[in-house]
Amino acid sequence: MSVVHLVTDAEAKANPAIKAVFDDIRATRKSDFVNNIWRALAAVDPAGLQRTWDGVKSLMAVPGALDQKTREMIYIAVSAANSCEYCVHSHTAAARAQGMTAAEHSELLQIIALAASTNHLANAMQVPVDPEFQTPD
Amino acid sequence: MSVVHLVTDAEAKANPAIKAVFDDIRATRKSDFVNNIWRALAAVDPAGLQRTWDGVKSLMAVPGALDQKTREMIYIAVSAANSCEYCVHSHTAAARAQGMTAAEHSELLQIIALAASTNHLANAMQVPVDPEFQTPD
Amino acid sequence: MSVVHLVTDAEAKANPAIKAVFDDIRATRKSDFVNNIWRALAAVDPAGLQRTWDGVKSLMAVPGALDQKTREMIYIAVSAANSCEYCVHSHTAAARAQGMTAAEHSELLQIIALAASTNHLANAMQVPVDPEFQTPD
Amino acid sequence: MSVVHLVTDAEAKANPAIKAVFDDIRATRKSDFVNNIWRALAAVDPAGLQRTWDGVKSLMAVPGALDQKTREMIYIAVSAANSCEYCVHSHTAAARAQGMTAAEHSELLQIIALAASTNHLANAMQVPVDPEFQTPD
Amino acid sequence: MSVVHLVTDAEAKANPAIKAVFDDIRATRKSDFVNNIWRALAAVDPAGLQRTWDGVKSLMAVPGALDQKTREMIYIAVSAANSCEYCVHSHTAAARAQGMTAAEHSELLQIIALAASTNHLANAMQVPVDPEFQTPD
Amino acid sequence: MSVVHLVTDAEAKANPAIKAVFDDIRATRKSDFVNNIWRALAAVDPAGLQRTWDGVKSLMAVPGALDQKTREMIYIAVSAANSCEYCVHSHTAAARAQGMTAAEHSELLQIIALAASTNHLANAMQVPVDPEFQTPD
Repeated sequence: MSVVHLVTDAEAKANPAIKAVFDDIRATRKSDFVNNIWRALAAVDPAGLQRTWDGVKSLMAVPGALDQKTREMIYIAVSAANSCEYCVHSHTAAARAQGMTAAEHSELLQIIALAASTNHLANAMQVPVDPEFQTPD
Repeated sequence: MSVVHLVTDAEAKANPAIKAVFDDIRATRKSDFVNNIWRALAAVDPAGLQRTWDGVKSLMAVPGALDQKTREMIYIAVSAANSCEYCVHSHTAAARAQGMTAAEHSELLQIIALAASTNHLANAMQVPVDPEFQTPD
Repeated sequence: MSVVHLVTDAEAKANPAIKAVFDDIRATRKSDFVNNIWRALAAVDPAGLQRTWDGVKSLMAVPGALDQKTREMIYIAVSAANSCEYCVHSHTAAARAQGMTAAEHSELLQIIALAASTNHLANAMQVPVDPEFQTPD
Repeated sequence: MSVVHLVTDAEAKANPAIKAVFDDIRATRKSDFVNNIWRALAAVDPAGLQRTWDGVKSLMAVPGALDQKTREMIYIAVSAANSCEYCVHSHTAAARAQGMTAAEHSELLQIIALAASTNHLANAMQVPVDPEFQTPD
Repeated sequence: MSVVHLVTDAEAKANPAIKAVFDDIRATRKSDFVNNIWRALAAVDPAGLQRTWDGVKSLMAVPGALDQKTREMIYIAVSAANSCEYCVHSHTAAARAQGMTAAEHSELLQIIALAASTNHLANAMQVPVDPEFQTPD
Repeated sequence: MSVVHLVTDAEAKANPAIKAVFDDIRATRKSDFVNNIWRALAAVDPAGLQRTWDGVKSLMAVPGALDQKTREMIYIAVSAANSCEYCVHSHTAAARAQGMTAAEHSELLQIIALAASTNHLANAMQVPVDPEFQTPD
């Protein structure tokens, strides 16, 4: 259950600032579906809704150095490490919508698990950083 | 500083199990450099050294569904979320060695930051998972 | 579902150590409601129940340098970062009971999200601490 | 040590996009000091530098529902939970610059520690959320 | 709900690689119960299923320096800190099956809570490591 | 570097509340060494110093269901997961002082790494908790 209200479509229609973001989400994604994180943000903070959506849209929906599927897979990796149930669900769905195959998903999960194990090993042993990894000035 | 000893090359030469792994690291990477996490693992747990190296080698050095650069970028993402100083350094170096460009690194950092912000938002609002994200049985 | 039993009021009445804490929770909060974390702690560890309640009571319910609403908002921030579903729920309710407004909640969420993003950026770039931040001896 | 270059003032002067942000940081803070996270971001991602600074500036430097000292204390709480060495240093300095007293700092640390302990307890016992904490629709 | 399919017994019977692992889980544990994490891994990555089960079996089911109950308690501690709901449930059940008493569970929870509080304190104060803790070369 | 002052022995002698705790640390541990976390807490919060030391002393130094070596190993596990550099150092030293062998340390590290990997896998797949793990009421 949420600690905040989830804005309904009827409520969104009555609030121009929220309606504008919901409309843009639908237009950008070519889908009528507005998922709950936007409904929660709309309830708590309409200005933050716009800013967060702008960030997601510009980073996840615009062409750049990385393709969108890779971006979504990186997003899943961070979300698993931060134990964000909602984000794992929403970005796994998004990665699949971007064409992530079962084989890619499998490798992603393996890398997440491997990184977690060596992260904890390095932290538990407090391994000093090799001077060879130093970035030149 | 480390909480464990770091095995030197002289010590490794005197221990066949450790020497075998160090030799394989060097052969696989085509480099004489054996970084500290392997020296620390060798000191604490020669059997674990072999097992961990096998995991890293099979996942990071063998062709699969994802290219090696992408794998290293996912590794960096998990390592940043887990606050592993050593791993961020070693895998950023590895990603660069695999050809990660400055533009790709920049986008990676932006996705990590964006994911972290929405992970914390979703956790702080306890947004319920949309039924649309349900995986069909 | 819980991994431990939740002590009922009937059970609490039969155990003087637990009854004393439950009575004090009700008296301190001027409410008959004893929430589940106390019922779980009572089941696992009556001595720890007393100690944990004393800590919470002394820090959260006694006047000090920070007002109680601010304390609850800081509590929410830590709980979101640690991905504690229970704690986000209970302390958001508590912050609202202490008068947290919708505008304050909105800003709190924004700061949590901003901090998370720069935390992950700083960790992913391993930014060295500026000497200017050094605390004088 | 950083995994990225830190942009010097000389380099910033030669890059109008970076110079504009550094100038705005100095003007907003009424100080010549530009700390390392901005120099790192400038090296990796000038566009991200602008966006991140805009976020920090609008949230941390503009009047709102919470005063700036409280905002910085919330920032410290998240940064400690995320184990961000850099952020703990920079935002403790900022909170002190905003007037955080020793008594307030002491209480902040106590709340962080208390929240961490009950977060871990609730996660380790998987305490179910009380229906009383449900947000009404 | 899961982001991946959970392999049923009927499906496992039709896939020799999965069937072999499920059979070994049942034989090793002397129980017909195959819990969901193996069913999820089987769906995503049959090769990873074998590797992960081998790791768990060799570490958790084979005699070594630590008894199995202690190993399960350490597992619970890491799982609580990483906010893994599934793992807290499965390893608390396993620790009980290995004979963990209520008194031991209670102390485990207290140590987890105490460690979390001083972890966050040390991170929030950035306490420098004492030279006395240095491991001799 | 610390964000707080570290109280020296000379300063401790001049403050009876701090002196009492430092004396008790020395008497309990039968050693003249007072490590930095107590010096930092003394600087920030003398009352919190007493409370935190009482918690550590009662849990770590008093006989109970778990032996002191096992307690320290659990402490290390939580500290690695929370990426607390200071705590990993201080509690690895303490575990060794309590007799942790190299073989036990090695197994501890392996369990931490294994737990981290399956924690992240379970979180990344959002594996549903088996009903068999339900605690009976």
